[in-house]
Amino acid sequence: MTYFPAKLLAGYRNFMGGRYSDERERYRGLAETGQKPHTLLVACCDSRAAPETIFDCGPGELFVVRNIANMVPPYEPDSQLHGTSAALEYAIQVLQIRDIVVMGHGRCGGIQAALDPELEPLSPGDFIGKWIGLVKPAAEQIQSNDLMTATERQTALERVSIRNSIGNLATFPFIRALTEKGELAVHGAWFDISSGELWVMNEKGDFIRPDMETEQAPAEPALTPAP
Amino acid sequence: MTYFPAKLLAGYRNFMGGRYSDERERYRGLAETGQKPHTLLVACCDSRAAPETIFDCGPGELFVVRNIANMVPPYEPDSQLHGTSAALEYAIQVLQIRDIVVMGHGRCGGIQAALDPELEPLSPGDFIGKWIGLVKPAAEQIQSNDLMTATERQTALERVSIRNSIGNLATFPFIRALTEKGELAVHGAWFDISSGELWVMNEKGDFIRPDMETEQAPAEPALTPAP
Amino acid sequence: MTYFPAKLLAGYRNFMGGRYSDERERYRGLAETGQKPHTLLVACCDSRAAPETIFDCGPGELFVVRNIANMVPPYEPDSQLHGTSAALEYAIQVLQIRDIVVMGHGRCGGIQAALDPELEPLSPGDFIGKWIGLVKPAAEQIQSNDLMTATERQTALERVSIRNSIGNLATFPFIRALTEKGELAVHGAWFDISSGELWVMNEKGDFIRPDMETEQAPAEPALTPAP
Amino acid sequence: MTYFPAKLLAGYRNFMGGRYSDERERYRGLAETGQKPHTLLVACCDSRAAPETIFDCGPGELFVVRNIANMVPPYEPDSQLHGTSAALEYAIQVLQIRDIVVMGHGRCGGIQAALDPELEPLSPGDFIGKWIGLVKPAAEQIQSNDLMTATERQTALERVSIRNSIGNLATFPFIRALTEKGELAVHGAWFDISSGELWVMNEKGDFIRPDMETEQAPAEPALTPAP
Repeated sequence: MTYFPAKLLAGYRNFMGGRYSDERERYRGLAETGQKPHTLLVACCDSRAAPETIFDCGPGELFVVRNIANMVPPYEPDSQLHGTSAALEYAIQVLQIRDIVVMGHGRCGGIQAALDPELEPLSPGDFIGKWIGLVKPAAEQIQSNDLMTATERQTALERVSIRNSIGNLATFPFIRALTEKGELAVHGAWFDISSGELWVMNEKGDFIRPDMETEQAPAEPALTPAP
Repeated sequence: MTYFPAKLLAGYRNFMGGRYSDERERYRGLAETGQKPHTLLVACCDSRAAPETIFDCGPGELFVVRNIANMVPPYEPDSQLHGTSAALEYAIQVLQIRDIVVMGHGRCGGIQAALDPELEPLSPGDFIGKWIGLVKPAAEQIQSNDLMTATERQTALERVSIRNSIGNLATFPFIRALTEKGELAVHGAWFDISSGELWVMNEKGDFIRPDMETEQAPAEPALTPAP
Repeated sequence: MTYFPAKLLAGYRNFMGGRYSDERERYRGLAETGQKPHTLLVACCDSRAAPETIFDCGPGELFVVRNIANMVPPYEPDSQLHGTSAALEYAIQVLQIRDIVVMGHGRCGGIQAALDPELEPLSPGDFIGKWIGLVKPAAEQIQSNDLMTATERQTALERVSIRNSIGNLATFPFIRALTEKGELAVHGAWFDISSGELWVMNEKGDFIRPDMETEQAPAEPALTPAP
Repeated sequence: MTYFPAKLLAGYRNFMGGRYSDERERYRGLAETGQKPHTLLVACCDSRAAPETIFDCGPGELFVVRNIANMVPPYEPDSQLHGTSAALEYAIQVLQIRDIVVMGHGRCGGIQAALDPELEPLSPGDFIGKWIGLVKPAAEQIQSNDLMTATERQTALERVSIRNSIGNLATFPFIRALTEKGELAVHGAWFDISSGELWVMNEKGDFIRPDMETEQAPAEPALTPAP
């Protein structure tokens, strides 16, 4: 095992000299009293869409689950490992968080993979293939629409996938019970990496620009495939 | 579904007026060319330990998986969903990231749960119970040490769990093949929320403070009679 | 017997020309009135952990017992010689010291010996083997933890041993009587030779950095479902 | 257990800001390579006679045993605990130290106790009574000399006791073997707390002032009993 990456150590020194030294008391307080984050954020692993950056959040604010394509699987009380479901359970049952945001983003490699008819297994385990299977039925329906451009289909599936995850959240009894009592709110958001625009989901499931309070389609530069 | 949390919208406006406007070109370039993150970071969902904050990283730098207690399950090429394994596969096979960091932290609620002998299922699905089952055998061995304090046992397990995840990384054929060729490096780190200290794992698996470049290692001559 | 080591004579001349000439009156006063040290310090013989140096103490401040691994044996009112117990008795009963500090340190050779399963007797008397027998049961329990590294086990035993000595102090009736009346305080400390850091024991027996006023304590809400 | 003494924490901060920061590399080196002290010093617990202070020694120089009246018991390879013998064994057999200094001092409370015919047991265990039993025969002989003053008798016994300890060192086979081969040197020293004078033992067992290279009796102010 080689030694720790110098770039990360340099960044850590910036943190210690900057943010940490400015917020020492906040960190200490959070350590003593434990975390009480106001929001559970289900986001993508994508390096261009870090929730703390996009929402300018400090320590203690966001409890963050990050997986490929910010997906929430349906409730499956079986004997298997469910990392995302475990995080939901901890956030809602232990930390008693009462706002959940599922945030997708443009140019999502996972969504792009779901739309790729010739996707080859990347490993004998083909973990990505199974994972994006969560949106495969939706992907196939969208893929069949040859009137939309590839870019439009990708953006469409990115948003369908957010609604899909939100629908799956409702399959968890401890979430449904709270939402039905109006004690838990579930939100959707979509981040445009290029323009930096945040689109949030409204009551109808449409994505709008909060600064515009109006619904519109994203105008994007031509999609370059994720490397 | 209620409308989007005002606190997040306010934070987003700070981002747009600040970081995004400073880094507009960087975001646009990342959108055009796709992401090329230098590091895959497996971190905890904990709101007090955001990797981008601790390593002062900007957009495009860190591909981040976040789950409860920053755990990597062993390679299981079955038909199940494996969100963390899918993210590993995408990071290594698609994005060709060649540095992996598993970062744990102090006061980890998931590790605390693993050490709790009377943990009750939080839901019929008991997702947390199954998830932390990944470190349960280690937790039981550490729990049996009644000479260490609860705090000492927790810190010990937090570090054992990082080594455990690193050991599980090696069970993935596509990771092992690269590490054996010296083309992929795997690192461990442990963050102290209170002091802000970062401890990194060295070749022996011990955690040291990089600013100290030292560890608690016994360095006495071998305890045998002088010839 | 050869003549006195020149290095020590040179050091003594520095003392006479420096500290003594600066503190002549203090030494004379201490000679006239006798010593009234404020603290009894039980420390290790290790050349790297001199209490007067670490606590920057002058003449008359610390009454110091130094033995291998700063150990306090349990109260044994038999006919044997007990050098450490005699020093405790003198410090508490004659000098009426009311603060006791047991100070351990990193890389302790005696603790390392206790963790060495193949330790050979160093002499027919095997004095070290018997002496470290005081922590052998603890050493065996810690040794059985194969998840921790050798370094982690050593640090753990160094701290367990301090708590063990503090526990043994309470077996001395003249110490227990005073502590129960709140007239005598017993403290623990652990010194990191390399970093120079001092860790002090808190009420729970955990070692914390006084400059940090924090420890690795789990502070999550109890892991039980929200009512 | 009350919190750590403020006076010691203040002293520790002086150490960190002063000596440690001046000698950081030395401490780190000593931690990495282990200690190689040049001298084993058997000294008294007395707060006025710290060896590192009197010989102006830094970290890594002196391996120090401190007990009441700097005594070395005779070699007793039985099943009992022998803290001082364990330290000798470690210093000579493990660290391979080849200079031993037994340092006594004026106004030694332990020696004074040995000369006190009405000394009452200080505890049911009477640890001091047994410990100073090591010089009791010598004390009785000196006590019977009513021509010497109390001060003269005390100084005389302090020096007899040093020679006594040096004689006991020779009862340890691993020490005698080395001294007979001329590979190990044993020295005696006596420190006058009031004047700061160091008297060292010469080949004949007499104590002389190294700066005078002549033998003379100490001129002391009237002895005040140790409190």
